[in-house]
Amino acid sequence: GVLGSGDFARSLAIRLVCSGFKVVVGSRNPKRKASLFPAAAEVTFQAEAVKKADVIFVAIFREHYSTLCDLADVLAGKILVDVSNNTEINHHKESNAEYLASLFPACTVVKGFNVVSAWTLQSGARDGNKQVLICSNNQEAKRTVAEIAQVMGFAPVDMGCMSSASEIENIPLRLLPAWKIPIFLALGLFLCFFTYNLIRQVIHPYIREQKNKLYKIPIEVVNTTLPCVSYVMLSLVYLPGVLAACSQLYYGTKYRRFPDWLDQWLQHRKQIGLLSFFCAALHAVYSLCLPMRRSHRYLLIETAVKQAVEKKMTIWVEEEVWRMEIYISVGIIALGLLSLLAITSLPSIANSLNWREFSFIQ
Amino acid sequence: GVLGSGDFARSLAIRLVCSGFKVVVGSRNPKRKASLFPAAAEVTFQAEAVKKADVIFVAIFREHYSTLCDLADVLAGKILVDVSNNTEINHHKESNAEYLASLFPACTVVKGFNVVSAWTLQSGARDGNKQVLICSNNQEAKRTVAEIAQVMGFAPVDMGCMSSASEIENIPLRLLPAWKIPIFLALGLFLCFFTYNLIRQVIHPYIREQKNKLYKIPIEVVNTTLPCVSYVMLSLVYLPGVLAACSQLYYGTKYRRFPDWLDQWLQHRKQIGLLSFFCAALHAVYSLCLPMRRSHRYLLIETAVKQAVEKKMTIWVEEEVWRMEIYISVGIIALGLLSLLAITSLPSIANSLNWREFSFIQ
Amino acid sequence: GVLGSGDFARSLAIRLVCSGFKVVVGSRNPKRKASLFPAAAEVTFQAEAVKKADVIFVAIFREHYSTLCDLADVLAGKILVDVSNNTEINHHKESNAEYLASLFPACTVVKGFNVVSAWTLQSGARDGNKQVLICSNNQEAKRTVAEIAQVMGFAPVDMGCMSSASEIENIPLRLLPAWKIPIFLALGLFLCFFTYNLIRQVIHPYIREQKNKLYKIPIEVVNTTLPCVSYVMLSLVYLPGVLAACSQLYYGTKYRRFPDWLDQWLQHRKQIGLLSFFCAALHAVYSLCLPMRRSHRYLLIETAVKQAVEKKMTIWVEEEVWRMEIYISVGIIALGLLSLLAITSLPSIANSLNWREFSFIQ
Repeated sequence: GVLGSGDFARSLAIRLVCSGFKVVVGSRNPKRKASLFPAAAEVTFQAEAVKKADVIFVAIFREHYSTLCDLADVLAGKILVDVSNNTEINHHKESNAEYLASLFPACTVVKGFNVVSAWTLQSGARDGNKQVLICSNNQEAKRTVAEIAQVMGFAPVDMGCMSSASEIENIPLRLLPAWKIPIFLALGLFLCFFTYNLIRQVIHPYIREQKNKLYKIPIEVVNTTLPCVSYVMLSLVYLPGVLAACSQLYYGTKYRRFPDWLDQWLQHRKQIGLLSFFCAALHAVYSLCLPMRRSHRYLLIETAVKQAVEKKMTIWVEEEVWRMEIYISVGIIALGLLSLLAITSLPSIANSLNWREFSFIQ
Repeated sequence: GVLGSGDFARSLAIRLVCSGFKVVVGSRNPKRKASLFPAAAEVTFQAEAVKKADVIFVAIFREHYSTLCDLADVLAGKILVDVSNNTEINHHKESNAEYLASLFPACTVVKGFNVVSAWTLQSGARDGNKQVLICSNNQEAKRTVAEIAQVMGFAPVDMGCMSSASEIENIPLRLLPAWKIPIFLALGLFLCFFTYNLIRQVIHPYIREQKNKLYKIPIEVVNTTLPCVSYVMLSLVYLPGVLAACSQLYYGTKYRRFPDWLDQWLQHRKQIGLLSFFCAALHAVYSLCLPMRRSHRYLLIETAVKQAVEKKMTIWVEEEVWRMEIYISVGIIALGLLSLLAITSLPSIANSLNWREFSFIQ
Repeated sequence: GVLGSGDFARSLAIRLVCSGFKVVVGSRNPKRKASLFPAAAEVTFQAEAVKKADVIFVAIFREHYSTLCDLADVLAGKILVDVSNNTEINHHKESNAEYLASLFPACTVVKGFNVVSAWTLQSGARDGNKQVLICSNNQEAKRTVAEIAQVMGFAPVDMGCMSSASEIENIPLRLLPAWKIPIFLALGLFLCFFTYNLIRQVIHPYIREQKNKLYKIPIEVVNTTLPCVSYVMLSLVYLPGVLAACSQLYYGTKYRRFPDWLDQWLQHRKQIGLLSFFCAALHAVYSLCLPMRRSHRYLLIETAVKQAVEKKMTIWVEEEVWRMEIYISVGIIALGLLSLLAITSLPSIANSLNWREFSFIQ
């Protein structure tokens, strides 16, 4: 059974019909709404639909839950699946599913399917996340809903009892919250260092010697900026751990909570580290591209011609040779180690390591 | 208990014995077959074996299921595990497990272990997929079989009720079905563009100016071909979405099914996108290798010598310098963004994103 | 309820309180220990704590389990969660959880939380592995503990019945055991080939022609060493399969166990292969860096100047050009194929392949 006639209710009905279920849709105005649903789904009045169904998807807004109270008698003993979402994180004190359960104490309420979009329901779980998070206080009802999700082509995930409902309801509202601060930090650092390098490599030579070095902006200036950003970000990964240790030493206990800013910082270390790796990898690619450029070629030929005209046979500077060899060699090793760190941050790799192995690699 | 004496039955018996289970094998000719099984496994007549066991692995072909009908009485109440596979996808209308269940209504049938190879059974789940997909209409029986799989070193995955059996039986027959069309598409495009570039860069200069440029084939011609393939593939990722939107606008509804070819195309977008990324990454590596080549070195020295002999000191062409700097710079950024897309298509990353985050990144 | 007042007991109590549970701590000296626990947790005598709690975390060492025997009466019927670890792999014949179960036959024992560190408990499951492995012979108790883990922010994983306990207890002691031999092998091979290349490229020219080529050590010598290591490692991946096949042909059966050394070798193939890929990738990066070096630039200019002074216009050697083009081209293709192999060894990718697809790619 499906209660409601919105976008989600329709997509749900289509998907259920396609998966071979017998679907009955409850609507206040079944005649007008019938055309919106697939022909195989029976559209009827709410009370009648509820009577015919064992599992009822409540696809209406939280604000209208109370309108169902007239149906309390026919709903008694049925499984209600709350598929609703909020428009704001922690909008209501109580999760929608718990609110529904409090309105209908004679029903078994299961939270689920809210992390799935109407589009995914219609087109089938093709790519992206196929998981459907389910929670309920009733094991049997949870299993029934999980099996429906399975048949519909999703991967049900048991999220335990009803207290997880508000967590599940917050998931679809998330937009990479852990990445916001690290990304703005990286952009800020990039801007600072870019300005400094622009002045140093382009504007300064222009003012002092009237040399036009504008061509350096897209690659060379960016390339000297990236490792600076990467270094600062990497140090910001390890700094909060040191501060935390100092705070523990100062207060003489491990069991005191850290101040909020330090706690937030500690939580963002993984993201800061990955951005540091991303900058380092870009720096490597930019550096590797340097000899491909026309400007590099022209400067090389110019130097060669100048030497040839002056008949100066050798220009070997041992110190410069060594500086470059060591710089490149250390850079490659550092990038290789950072890659290992980045790989262990993949969820499936992290799940196969115990914490001893994880800290060893870190 | 294990019924059957084929390759799979033997491997199963070996593994069960190694995992500490007491194994009894049922055979029609126990004397002749006993030598094939490990010494710790008791090999006896079928009826006797069934009597001694609670969980019975039916390791015989679907065609011979009916030969077990004589044992129906002793089998009653036991758990039968159907481990069979088909030779063709959807070979029979009814899955093997459902057919077995219909023959023995007094037994509890569990589908499982068919996704595991005889080799993996013998050698233990070392690498690759350790999952054993299990389905049954009986929760208790499913749990028992899941626990046996766990002890044998596999990762049991609950696939819900018996209706999933035919899906599970089709899995071992799959050979990257979603990749076939995209790979042939990529190969076709590669051939076309390769031929065009071969004519343009090698055959044409040879005919017109008698210049031998054959050395360009392995790297330069391939390197100009790859980005063309990559671009066309990338556009093929976004085109079906546009077509789908147009079709929805034209018909004025979101709830009409797309034509089959469009549906197929929408389903292959992920694979086409990954192949596009693969071509782009290969193009990057090929381009980075350009200055390493002998031919590059020779051309450079030749130009320098020519300039020196003519005493022409400067060859700087501002426009060419800029074109190259901007080309490389945009290429690196594009590759960086494509890498992010490729990373989010890893199953473990995709599972940690909600659909809002997933569409944001896409 | 939590029994014990060590580091783990305290972290557990803090986390349980933070997750909204009512916590009672049982201690022999509640007055002295109370200050160590959060204010919201009630600290009292052991017997009293046990009476008040339904689920009791036994956070004391195995050696002291017997001290709880006085409490056997009040413990009867409760769920005991064994969170203990060992200091050595397979230290005791019987796992700690099974030992606890044998001491208190009237209790339901669940193994769990031992894979989590005290630090992770306090700070919440931020990064790394969030899984809590749980096993028990009692389904209901297992589910209760799994739900507690869920609410605490961990991902409970059902590991089946009590016989998995010793496996779970060994997990935190593991330190990448499968990587030890392959890493030492790679280091050994690297040292051998490095010495050979050092003599060949640096020491030999110095002794024979008094040429100082020391600058070649950090990049060129390493770069010629890496592919040698990679090749030998790659051959070591495929060799044991051939030996295994030979042994099967020789003995005329697939069902004979391989000798231990071959079995070990077969088990380490994945790690050896990944190290081979790592060396190959490093070799690619080192090679790409060659034209960036000062020494490369100097040698190029020197050659150009020499040619110009001698007025030798052409230096094109067709054979050398072709050798380099083919070398680079084959190298890129080989690295591309190895990358595919490396990607399929990611756990989340491997789990989405069936064994037919997996062996096809391998």
